[in-house]
Amino acid sequence: MRSIWLEKVIDSVADRGRELLGMRGDPAPSDLENLCNALLTQKGEASGTALAREILRHYQQLSTARKLEFFTLLDSRFGPDKDAIFKAANAFRELGSAQAWLSLSETMEPQRLRLFRRLNTAPDGTRALVGMRADLLSLLGQNPSLEAVDADLKRLFTFWFNRGFLELRRIDWRTSATVLEKLITYESVHEIQSWGDLRRRLEADRRCFAFFHPALADDPLIFVEAALVRGMAATIDPLIDEGAPVLNPHDADSVIFYSINNCLTGLRGVSFGNFLIKQVAMELQREFPAVKLFSTLSPMPGFQRALRDRKIFTDWRLQAMVGSGAPAICAAAGTKDLASALMLLLQEPLRHEDVLTAPLTRLGLAYLVCARRKGKPLDPVAHFHLSNGAQLERINPFANRSPRGLRQSAGVMVNFRYIAQDFEANHEAFARHKKIQLGRALQKDGRSVREAWTSRS
Amino acid sequence: MRSIWLEKVIDSVADRGRELLGMRGDPAPSDLENLCNALLTQKGEASGTALAREILRHYQQLSTARKLEFFTLLDSRFGPDKDAIFKAANAFRELGSAQAWLSLSETMEPQRLRLFRRLNTAPDGTRALVGMRADLLSLLGQNPSLEAVDADLKRLFTFWFNRGFLELRRIDWRTSATVLEKLITYESVHEIQSWGDLRRRLEADRRCFAFFHPALADDPLIFVEAALVRGMAATIDPLIDEGAPVLNPHDADSVIFYSINNCLTGLRGVSFGNFLIKQVAMELQREFPAVKLFSTLSPMPGFQRALRDRKIFTDWRLQAMVGSGAPAICAAAGTKDLASALMLLLQEPLRHEDVLTAPLTRLGLAYLVCARRKGKPLDPVAHFHLSNGAQLERINPFANRSPRGLRQSAGVMVNFRYIAQDFEANHEAFARHKKIQLGRALQKDGRSVREAWTSRS
Amino acid sequence: MRSIWLEKVIDSVADRGRELLGMRGDPAPSDLENLCNALLTQKGEASGTALAREILRHYQQLSTARKLEFFTLLDSRFGPDKDAIFKAANAFRELGSAQAWLSLSETMEPQRLRLFRRLNTAPDGTRALVGMRADLLSLLGQNPSLEAVDADLKRLFTFWFNRGFLELRRIDWRTSATVLEKLITYESVHEIQSWGDLRRRLEADRRCFAFFHPALADDPLIFVEAALVRGMAATIDPLIDEGAPVLNPHDADSVIFYSINNCLTGLRGVSFGNFLIKQVAMELQREFPAVKLFSTLSPMPGFQRALRDRKIFTDWRLQAMVGSGAPAICAAAGTKDLASALMLLLQEPLRHEDVLTAPLTRLGLAYLVCARRKGKPLDPVAHFHLSNGAQLERINPFANRSPRGLRQSAGVMVNFRYIAQDFEANHEAFARHKKIQLGRALQKDGRSVREAWTSRS
Amino acid sequence: MRSIWLEKVIDSVADRGRELLGMRGDPAPSDLENLCNALLTQKGEASGTALAREILRHYQQLSTARKLEFFTLLDSRFGPDKDAIFKAANAFRELGSAQAWLSLSETMEPQRLRLFRRLNTAPDGTRALVGMRADLLSLLGQNPSLEAVDADLKRLFTFWFNRGFLELRRIDWRTSATVLEKLITYESVHEIQSWGDLRRRLEADRRCFAFFHPALADDPLIFVEAALVRGMAATIDPLIDEGAPVLNPHDADSVIFYSINNCLTGLRGVSFGNFLIKQVAMELQREFPAVKLFSTLSPMPGFQRALRDRKIFTDWRLQAMVGSGAPAICAAAGTKDLASALMLLLQEPLRHEDVLTAPLTRLGLAYLVCARRKGKPLDPVAHFHLSNGAQLERINPFANRSPRGLRQSAGVMVNFRYIAQDFEANHEAFARHKKIQLGRALQKDGRSVREAWTSRS
Repeated sequence: MRSIWLEKVIDSVADRGRELLGMRGDPAPSDLENLCNALLTQKGEASGTALAREILRHYQQLSTARKLEFFTLLDSRFGPDKDAIFKAANAFRELGSAQAWLSLSETMEPQRLRLFRRLNTAPDGTRALVGMRADLLSLLGQNPSLEAVDADLKRLFTFWFNRGFLELRRIDWRTSATVLEKLITYESVHEIQSWGDLRRRLEADRRCFAFFHPALADDPLIFVEAALVRGMAATIDPLIDEGAPVLNPHDADSVIFYSINNCLTGLRGVSFGNFLIKQVAMELQREFPAVKLFSTLSPMPGFQRALRDRKIFTDWRLQAMVGSGAPAICAAAGTKDLASALMLLLQEPLRHEDVLTAPLTRLGLAYLVCARRKGKPLDPVAHFHLSNGAQLERINPFANRSPRGLRQSAGVMVNFRYIAQDFEANHEAFARHKKIQLGRALQKDGRSVREAWTSRS
Repeated sequence: MRSIWLEKVIDSVADRGRELLGMRGDPAPSDLENLCNALLTQKGEASGTALAREILRHYQQLSTARKLEFFTLLDSRFGPDKDAIFKAANAFRELGSAQAWLSLSETMEPQRLRLFRRLNTAPDGTRALVGMRADLLSLLGQNPSLEAVDADLKRLFTFWFNRGFLELRRIDWRTSATVLEKLITYESVHEIQSWGDLRRRLEADRRCFAFFHPALADDPLIFVEAALVRGMAATIDPLIDEGAPVLNPHDADSVIFYSINNCLTGLRGVSFGNFLIKQVAMELQREFPAVKLFSTLSPMPGFQRALRDRKIFTDWRLQAMVGSGAPAICAAAGTKDLASALMLLLQEPLRHEDVLTAPLTRLGLAYLVCARRKGKPLDPVAHFHLSNGAQLERINPFANRSPRGLRQSAGVMVNFRYIAQDFEANHEAFARHKKIQLGRALQKDGRSVREAWTSRS
Repeated sequence: MRSIWLEKVIDSVADRGRELLGMRGDPAPSDLENLCNALLTQKGEASGTALAREILRHYQQLSTARKLEFFTLLDSRFGPDKDAIFKAANAFRELGSAQAWLSLSETMEPQRLRLFRRLNTAPDGTRALVGMRADLLSLLGQNPSLEAVDADLKRLFTFWFNRGFLELRRIDWRTSATVLEKLITYESVHEIQSWGDLRRRLEADRRCFAFFHPALADDPLIFVEAALVRGMAATIDPLIDEGAPVLNPHDADSVIFYSINNCLTGLRGVSFGNFLIKQVAMELQREFPAVKLFSTLSPMPGFQRALRDRKIFTDWRLQAMVGSGAPAICAAAGTKDLASALMLLLQEPLRHEDVLTAPLTRLGLAYLVCARRKGKPLDPVAHFHLSNGAQLERINPFANRSPRGLRQSAGVMVNFRYIAQDFEANHEAFARHKKIQLGRALQKDGRSVREAWTSRS
Repeated sequence: MRSIWLEKVIDSVADRGRELLGMRGDPAPSDLENLCNALLTQKGEASGTALAREILRHYQQLSTARKLEFFTLLDSRFGPDKDAIFKAANAFRELGSAQAWLSLSETMEPQRLRLFRRLNTAPDGTRALVGMRADLLSLLGQNPSLEAVDADLKRLFTFWFNRGFLELRRIDWRTSATVLEKLITYESVHEIQSWGDLRRRLEADRRCFAFFHPALADDPLIFVEAALVRGMAATIDPLIDEGAPVLNPHDADSVIFYSINNCLTGLRGVSFGNFLIKQVAMELQREFPAVKLFSTLSPMPGFQRALRDRKIFTDWRLQAMVGSGAPAICAAAGTKDLASALMLLLQEPLRHEDVLTAPLTRLGLAYLVCARRKGKPLDPVAHFHLSNGAQLERINPFANRSPRGLRQSAGVMVNFRYIAQDFEANHEAFARHKKIQLGRALQKDGRSVREAWTSRS
């Protein structure tokens, strides 16, 4: 029940809103400008909260076209004051005083940033602003000038979603259905087929952890799924099979991270994933002291595309990697050209498992280790884990036989291994020297692949 | 129990720390520079969290002198790059592009701001940073150049302690003792004498509400104490008397806010008080629909000082305000000079209650309404409530007979009344035209006092 | 992680267990006797808890046949001492003293009752004992002598599951999946088809409440489902249709209780349903002051069976109830005998809706009001609500067109209405004089039906 | 806000109450009989809950004299039916059937037991009933016939407060003040002087645990205080000294239980203490694996009384125990009679510490080991711990120098040591053979004391 007080405050705000707008109906998107100005000139009071709510409510009812108008407004009318900034920057350069820095800082803050902060005081304001950025991101492609608005929102979120404010929570079958259905919605690496599938992923030998922000209760920001198993998993099927028998987790010696998903588009570029895996590893090490190995089982989403790109996998590189496996591939494909033969077989890889197993393993390794752009691995997943300090431990051919797994990664999956005492060094080596740390069993192949990759260039 | 994993991570960080510092003992404050640099160059990983914790731990062990050195470092080495900023500001002025704005924004962010954000990832990092600013504030007086560092910290807190992230919680006798003892520590308007005193202030006819931030559990940011009573309270004693009988709160018709306190020095200037009173009023209106009046009973902490200031209360103003009460005052003091007589009696006001009651009422009104600097009321409490949209409802002489109440406010207290539908207009009138809204009963006196104040100038 | 302490205690208990049993393997069911004796002679210590856990663990691994042996043991070896009781009862009759009453009370308590109490100290002991009774109930039919054991367990549960210890909790989509899947399992009135179906039943215009016991967290004892609608619902479909549009609950004027289910077989005969509906009605009245009507939409599970029973619905009663509708029924069935015709049409009632609507309404009313055994309504659902103080408000033909609805209730459903101020009187009238309170609209038909029912007897 | 529904139900109950009572005012205690009868004849409905609340409310307003009348009623009108019971017991003896057992069980249940169960459905009913028994216990001395009523209440509580329903909770400074002030109220072994004293007892090197029942939230049933220290504490002062420095608990090797208190008189005889110590020991062993010793530091509350009792400590026993210390005692007292001398010195023991230390140690040992009634140790504290399976580890003279410590225990305190793997055997030996297990260091003295005690008898 709303109190009389609240009603009165809202009425007086609404009255003022109408007065400002000179109208009785819902504000047009450009009319939001007036409401925003009203919010900005207030001292941030209880009525400010009511005003913020009104603005967000109206925003959410706008069509895409009118949202675009609104963002354009934020860009043009509520943006930074170029000349004032220049003047303040100049003064700061000359004086260098604390006072000059203060002035410059204040001048630098565009009106829209203050507006966002005030909108956040509305009930569920944070959620609405994150949604607003998701809208904005979808419009950026066509409207690159709005990137200035996006930069401010992203910067705001970098402050607000600081790791220090996030809470790591375990998600299991006792968790609220409101949260659980978010997992079903957001899991895109290995889709959750049903509530039964979800339940299996939360049994005693599985773990799911997510980061939450206090202002977004029930909305996981990012979650990771892990399996407690014996040995380093080489194929994905047993990990996501709804009917797989449940292992006593205290008998496990390995933790396999098999899926990590961001949930909120509006937080794109505000990263927490690097924290998540390591912190979950800590939690699990605490719970299961017998576990000796922490590793991912990851896709290589750009592998097939790279294989088809003759500038990356040139003919002679293909030849060098496939080596003695080439004749069998050509024979199976009925053509003499290795590249064509390989592309042909990769349309239905499962039918040519014996011929493809060894070549795919070596090609996969080459792809991860050698295929780079400006020194960074082409593969985004590989880049994430390697820059995170993991080492490349094993290439697993025919590890994911699902249509998508075959289409993107030619069925190959990778284990990136996380070793506590090596993070630092690995991360440094990767960040500074682009060096990828290989597990002991891969080192010889790694050298040979690297040599082959560059031998003719 | 700490996990092996955690141990290993910490060891590897510690090793690296020692390596960086070329030493085995605790880092000297200037050595913190190296640790901070290490933290800034990291990608914000689990080991970054460990590093952040180490830095904060060391910071907290520093002496005041060495803390000063540390802040000076933050100012000189981790501050903004004047020339780069100027260049970026110039480019932005010329290009005005989103890209130029992005560049400028990034250039504007001093290293220390990024450092603060990373320190926040340590366990209890937010609390440590708020404490750090409290340290800094105490050093500002002697070291005004550090205000640049303070500006960045304050700005950070403005983002982090956005009203949208605060939680309003009722505090009562069921609350944790950890929180309750904070009330005892921070209540400075009407000090809490004992746990018995505290308990009385949390009985059925009293309410206490506070704002909390999720990262500072158990640490109220600000709290307000209210009494449910019959009629608008005119004296403070019954409200804070440990032995006062407990009223059935459903019989109350008025809510009196009698104390509001900020708790954390480190958050100075990051204001939430204006939200607090109004939101509590809403909560209480919801719980007690029969309540008709919301008002404060506030001190006037600058009243005595102003009375003694002959530039504010000039002789002819004193004369005009005291009017027909002057002879009695002079007689009681045994002197003909009204100012001297008044000052004399105000040394022991309780002994001259009959003579002082009327004059103090009128002088108090004049002080609140007329004594201003640049249009703002001299009295900070009055300024807070009036800019908050309250109206000045009543002046209560001899309302606070405690030594402090007499020393600061000459025993006078004020009722500032909060009326939901008038906030907006009052706030606007005050903010724009410096207009103070008076309650109906004060309007005639208000006019006369205003005339008298300026009649001879 | 189990502590060394706990290990030691358990070891020492296990050692003692083995010693008692003279064996190394798992105890045979009859060996449980020794363990039970051990538990009974202990002073109820920490080791007693360990022992209780062992007994329950072993019990749960027994086959049905061996469980039967165990219950037989409880009957024969741990039952009451007939002679001692007689002696104590005699002494009490003669002395009537408090001391004699104490003696008798203690003598009356069979060993097994004490055993149950001690077993309850095991972790999750209550759940295990409730499960034990479920096992026992399934064996009672073949082993009626075990009813003595059951009587003790039921009595124990009557104490333990006192209404005062139960907690009423709302269940919605934010509730733990562990609890939610129990709804799917236990809903047997209108089965929940899927998680989507469940979700619809927990939307804003639906309510679900359950009683929980602190010792059975996550295990609802009984739950009721209600719909907020406009008008008294006459058919079940809109209430359980997954695709039905969601009403703003504040627009509703009626609450329809459309399903109530007990969850735990082991608590059979320990009733809480009568509390549940009324308390939920209170909660909903508080949340939705605009609601004016509280009613069920209930099945009549014994209706079809009663219709086919010529001793209940004799030929002349059928004739009297169907009245002028008889020719149409006979015509539709192609036979002159009304009873045969009716039975024929009731095999596919949906095909004869026009002919059957009026007769089924009247027959339904007659069934509820007149078909009794020892004064109690034959229909168990009717008996529940009427003895609960509800009034019979309306008969709805073709209200449930599902196969089961047609098979059991011939598609007819009833509204039992709950009116706060009439509970007491209705309950009294029903309990004492077997009087059924009819709603105003039914009173005339009620009289006529009653006359017709008895006219020829 | 109470709902209209609730109001109506209550009104109709109240109406019925008045009708039953033929009156308008509050019921006289004997009138409660009618209300109780009304409650018993109801089917336990929502209105029953309202009725139960009314009865409890009225009960609580009765004077002691009228409460006595009420209990007398419970005894005479709501008690068991002697003849019916005899008949049923006879039938059961003859038939031995399940049916006969059922009949007998039902007949055995007095009306008042059913009444108590129904009263429990009122809000906070359990608390009210526990309070009712506290009232009853205070009346038993003068009214022994009411012991029959008490027996039923106690039996009920034995069911309700089964260990399986209790929750062990740690109490620390984060606990609600509502709970904390109960500690201050109920601590009677070593009184808590102030909130500061309490706080010290909850610091990092102290632990407090309590059992709670779900129906009595915020009301601990029993609590134990423990200190984490180095070595087995020999004096109480350092454990309860508000100013004692706080030890890092991870440096402790011993846990000393120094106080255990029951809180609710109404639960007298319903024991949980034996569970508490052992379970807390388990918790602490888990948290502090380095702890090697669990022991109490206990008073001997009956020691002084026993010393003064010449039938227990006969002259020759005193002589035998004090032995070579006798001359010094007699000299200090200025008398030749050892008993008189000892009694004299014990009036101010602190002044004669050197003379008394050795004799008190030996007398204390004799008191604990030899002073028995029907085989049970005279000392209640000793009896509690020994029957609990602890062993007698050390006698500490001048361990408690407080007035009460000196008055009751002559300043002597005892360490009873809890060793996990010995509970069972110690408990058995004590329960069956009255054997007290002595720690290694006491065994020789134990034998000598036992011999001396019986040498002349």
